[in-house]
Amino acid sequence: MAKKFKDISMAVIRRLPKYHRYLKELLDKEVYRISSKELSNMMGFTASQIRQDLNNFGGFGQQGYGYNVEELYGEIKKILGLNISYGTVIIGSGNLGQAIANYTNLQKHGFNLLALFDTNPKLIGMRIRDVPIYDIDEMQEFIDTNNINIGIICTPKEFAQDIANKLVKANVSAIWNFAPIDLKVPENIIVENVHLSDSLFIISYLLNNQEKEQWD
Amino acid sequence: MAKKFKDISMAVIRRLPKYHRYLKELLDKEVYRISSKELSNMMGFTASQIRQDLNNFGGFGQQGYGYNVEELYGEIKKILGLNISYGTVIIGSGNLGQAIANYTNLQKHGFNLLALFDTNPKLIGMRIRDVPIYDIDEMQEFIDTNNINIGIICTPKEFAQDIANKLVKANVSAIWNFAPIDLKVPENIIVENVHLSDSLFIISYLLNNQEKEQWD
Repeated sequence: MAKKFKDISMAVIRRLPKYHRYLKELLDKEVYRISSKELSNMMGFTASQIRQDLNNFGGFGQQGYGYNVEELYGEIKKILGLNISYGTVIIGSGNLGQAIANYTNLQKHGFNLLALFDTNPKLIGMRIRDVPIYDIDEMQEFIDTNNINIGIICTPKEFAQDIANKLVKANVSAIWNFAPIDLKVPENIIVENVHLSDSLFIISYLLNNQEKEQWD
Repeated sequence: MAKKFKDISMAVIRRLPKYHRYLKELLDKEVYRISSKELSNMMGFTASQIRQDLNNFGGFGQQGYGYNVEELYGEIKKILGLNISYGTVIIGSGNLGQAIANYTNLQKHGFNLLALFDTNPKLIGMRIRDVPIYDIDEMQEFIDTNNINIGIICTPKEFAQDIANKLVKANVSAIWNFAPIDLKVPENIIVENVHLSDSLFIISYLLNNQEKEQWD
């Protein structure tokens, strides 16, 4: 088990995956040592921001040396809980559900996809990357008997709250929600949303409002 | 053309799609009038936050009446630039690219998908929802002749920066980037990222650090 951290702000937590990404890139380029200044240039954070962020977790740099990239990457992985395996299921096996099932980063980072579920008889019985699609009616029992931590909701929005209720009842700890709806769940359930249309509408807003500067 | 707004903070802008979503839900339930207090209960923003947010765009409520849902929804749509049509292409036609192409919200909100591109000969020539997949080598010319505003990058990360460079050269205004990389583009190019693994890692972090409370 990794060390646990408390009372860290969500703003800091949301920056951690970015550290993970950049440190991985450095390792891929065989860079094993980096100063906080170089790291800050790459990432677009100030050096003091980086030091502050990492101090929340104990701080890893050494005055005059900078950061050992491999060591820091390993620590960030542990902090992010990526040294642990999580039982995962996908609910909704249409295009998006299948795309997520095919998403290699799931398996690679310990999100162990064990089943997909759907209501469509044409999909039930199929396999995506060797993972079976089952009837949604079998979900509760499957989760009960397979130690599932995470449910990924890829259903149309009108079914998402009902599925979330069932996932909560089946004792999953976290929901990765792709349906364009804010789920209502008990406080102890982790919900992380990917609201694609919210993201898309930021583009149309900016497209529509940046043009002004060309015309003024 | 919609009215243009300047100097609005990204925090406010990022809340706008949520207003859009909740107002649409109200309309679907045939609720045509709502107080800022009721809206705040639904959305989890304070009533004063809502008034402040909307005041950036002129303010739409009426003392003692609240908001006319239909009118406010129409205004938010215009503010988000959803009354305009955008020429859109997808680069990378694997699972994720196809899932996005099948994503009905694109077409519904004016993101007019005209082509997908790929390097895989097995995919080139196929159609997704009647939209053709072309050879990536035809991208530049296609964008030049079809008034494309938005390029959606669904390629593996090692190709994403090169594709972004080509999109910039072909004069797209915005990139919706699904590759797990921070693209380097000129300042006037809009980049909106959907970093799926960043989102996923927030779940593993929280799973790993919430458990503590049960054990302490």
